[in-house]
Amino acid sequence: MNYRMIGRIIGQILGLEALFLLLPLAICLADGDEPAVLGFTLSVLISAGVYLLLRWLCRNAETGFRAKEGLVCVSLAWMAMSFLGCLPFFLSGAIPNLVDALFETVSGFTTTGASILPAVEGLPRGLLFWRSFTHWVGGMGVLVFLLAIIPISGAGGGFTMHLLRAESPGPNVGKLVPRIRQTAKLLYLIYVVLTVLDLIFLLLGGMPLFDALCTAFATAGTGGFSVRNASMAAYSPYLQNVTTVFMLLFGVNFSCYYLLLMRQIRNVFRDEELRLYLGLVAAAILLITWDLRGLYATVGETVRQAAFQVSSIISTTGFATTDFDLWPSFSKAILMILMITGACAGSTAGGLKLARALLLFKTLRRNARQVLHPSRVQVVRNNGQAVPEKVLEHANAYFAAYIIIIIVSFLLISLDEFSLTTNFTAVLACFNNVGPGLDGVGPTCSYAAYSTFSKLVLTVDMLAGRLEIFPILALFSRGSWTYR
Amino acid sequence: MNYRMIGRIIGQILGLEALFLLLPLAICLADGDEPAVLGFTLSVLISAGVYLLLRWLCRNAETGFRAKEGLVCVSLAWMAMSFLGCLPFFLSGAIPNLVDALFETVSGFTTTGASILPAVEGLPRGLLFWRSFTHWVGGMGVLVFLLAIIPISGAGGGFTMHLLRAESPGPNVGKLVPRIRQTAKLLYLIYVVLTVLDLIFLLLGGMPLFDALCTAFATAGTGGFSVRNASMAAYSPYLQNVTTVFMLLFGVNFSCYYLLLMRQIRNVFRDEELRLYLGLVAAAILLITWDLRGLYATVGETVRQAAFQVSSIISTTGFATTDFDLWPSFSKAILMILMITGACAGSTAGGLKLARALLLFKTLRRNARQVLHPSRVQVVRNNGQAVPEKVLEHANAYFAAYIIIIIVSFLLISLDEFSLTTNFTAVLACFNNVGPGLDGVGPTCSYAAYSTFSKLVLTVDMLAGRLEIFPILALFSRGSWTYR
Repeated sequence: MNYRMIGRIIGQILGLEALFLLLPLAICLADGDEPAVLGFTLSVLISAGVYLLLRWLCRNAETGFRAKEGLVCVSLAWMAMSFLGCLPFFLSGAIPNLVDALFETVSGFTTTGASILPAVEGLPRGLLFWRSFTHWVGGMGVLVFLLAIIPISGAGGGFTMHLLRAESPGPNVGKLVPRIRQTAKLLYLIYVVLTVLDLIFLLLGGMPLFDALCTAFATAGTGGFSVRNASMAAYSPYLQNVTTVFMLLFGVNFSCYYLLLMRQIRNVFRDEELRLYLGLVAAAILLITWDLRGLYATVGETVRQAAFQVSSIISTTGFATTDFDLWPSFSKAILMILMITGACAGSTAGGLKLARALLLFKTLRRNARQVLHPSRVQVVRNNGQAVPEKVLEHANAYFAAYIIIIIVSFLLISLDEFSLTTNFTAVLACFNNVGPGLDGVGPTCSYAAYSTFSKLVLTVDMLAGRLEIFPILALFSRGSWTYR
Repeated sequence: MNYRMIGRIIGQILGLEALFLLLPLAICLADGDEPAVLGFTLSVLISAGVYLLLRWLCRNAETGFRAKEGLVCVSLAWMAMSFLGCLPFFLSGAIPNLVDALFETVSGFTTTGASILPAVEGLPRGLLFWRSFTHWVGGMGVLVFLLAIIPISGAGGGFTMHLLRAESPGPNVGKLVPRIRQTAKLLYLIYVVLTVLDLIFLLLGGMPLFDALCTAFATAGTGGFSVRNASMAAYSPYLQNVTTVFMLLFGVNFSCYYLLLMRQIRNVFRDEELRLYLGLVAAAILLITWDLRGLYATVGETVRQAAFQVSSIISTTGFATTDFDLWPSFSKAILMILMITGACAGSTAGGLKLARALLLFKTLRRNARQVLHPSRVQVVRNNGQAVPEKVLEHANAYFAAYIIIIIVSFLLISLDEFSLTTNFTAVLACFNNVGPGLDGVGPTCSYAAYSTFSKLVLTVDMLAGRLEIFPILALFSRGSWTYR
């Protein structure tokens, strides 16, 4: 295990975090909010201190980096980032319980949006900004950001590829361009441009600048933290529709936008995953609109409510414009299923990812055919190209791990005496980085009532969901730590 | 597609069913129950008539039989058997709705034990007997029975192997002895001996002969239909404990009993699946006993209730001695998980099967290791022997199909406005052939409230669960029907 290289990278992440923390600190200073100023100042100092300490301790890092080191590095970096990121909430006294503060921060970075705060409108603006900003930082990935801005000396392409693979979502992470650093830069460029576009549309609708910034961050990262107690229900239908569109856009594989930039429009719409995504969204909106007939005043409003909630759940954002826990069972069942599928790989959305769901379905179809016709050799194709068996095996293993984690987490948090629906959807909503679930963790409720133990279980679920399980497994695997 | 051979086998199954129907007919005659006598007489005549018709139509069957024909044959045979088996309920007027009668019969043959009858104590004894007898027939498999008693002329070992594979549960059906017919005979011999033992122990506890017969049939098939409204709560603690032990015994892979007969005792207890089974049962009983502290009068009673319910659910029998829907969430979560795992492959129990769960877990561990150490080649072992990649792929495909069927069924029956827990556990309980679920389909409730559409969905789920998905998939696959 190349501890020094891992230490150096974690140090750099924390240095970056110290810089990020200066933004909310400035807001607190402008508002003259003393406890929050103190909290952020201390957090900046601690982060910067740990950065300098790690830089000194790990000054002589060897080169050479293996897959398992990439996985462990990503896990530890996210944990360190979350521990330091929760300090402003804790030190300012806004969230007096450290586990609660950690839950809220992990929920932010992992773009989950599950909250232990019953109400947010009383919080200092600096804290609200930081809460939403963690979504934006976590959405595209902080290591990808690091790769984009800092040339890591002495580290070859293999090293950076391991990091990119470990942090990026999806079964098959491709490089957009031959050089990884350029790929990371391109991804962030698209991310920034889309965020700014969202911001502009929100401002045009008359949303105050602060609200618009926070909403754009939460939409871009598909997070879901809002600065209003009523979530997006506090804003006009125009602002809700803008958010619907941008939630959907951030659920699309970013390589599609790259292809658009390269004017390969035909290839974009040939993409099987994108077609499935758009088809699912359209089908879900239609079915829910039918199921909700008579619940809202007009058909137009029903479609708007259905479209917003569908986009929010499939993109795993978790904003709400209505209490969908009061919807009929069929609509709730559709939302539960969209929580699991999630949106496209290579987007900022969570969940299983549609690309992976497609691979699983195709593997199933192939194997079912092999049972029927044992003598024929069958290949699984994606967008017309044969998929290597390794990728299929990996998708199957991922799915098995995914189900096992859901079952074990559900069992563990069932020790809290809430309803089965509450506990089950709490796990689904946290692990898939959605945010709100149903019943006791519905859109009008919070996770405050869970025990400390359950909150820690759900915190690990959020990290495992965002980092796609294997980095967290690597952390707990004996094989990672035996020195070879 | 070798239609004539399929027709001939289905005919033989129906001929067998006509013989089986004579047993309850005799009981009805003894009781002088006229509508039931009429119902059974008509059913016997129709079954015998279809048998003769099919025998005549398919008199010149070609030899030669492929895997897909085995799958299709099993599916069609089970459907035909269920359609004719539901006639006594319908024709006697006991269940006036045909879909309800079909649901009840499929629930019987598939050893599910889910009922649309709110109360059973008023029914004619002949119908109650038939209801329980379907469990016994479906438990070990009617085609296995056919193979055991009738030499199918002109059909080689490949043909019978396809049938045995398609009807027997588990990822890796082995022959106990080189000849299939001997294997089938041995399986039924063990089955009969264990059933008779159960019957004797029940009679020794003072259970009336009729009740004891029906209870033994339902226990042996891991079905769960009872002749009393209160299920097993109507009997003494001794009878409940006997049933606990036999439910567990029928959840063990029957090849373990064969090894015991061959005095290979050491090999039995080396079996990884058996160890996992016993470990899971012990752990679940301990955890639930702890969780239920204070709910029952004594610790002894708590252990008895926990042990009965755990054995009933993990063996997918579905008897109840208490309303476990009133238990705390943690205990209910454990029962829900046991519904999914089921017991051992090669037993009469349903569910995913522990052997398959073990394979999935080992594949996951292997693939996780490959992510960490990409260069090493790793083999999955079961009981010390390398498992072929084909078997692993099949287990993974099975799991994907398993989850997809649960999700789709859950969505479809959500059109009925019951709670999410009701709908979700209804699917789990039917698809895994358990019987009772939670909330609206808990042990004190019935499936009567579901719509006709939902009942049909759940009926298909029961069949898909009992036949392990692929035979039903083969029926709906275009590839099976194109003549080649």
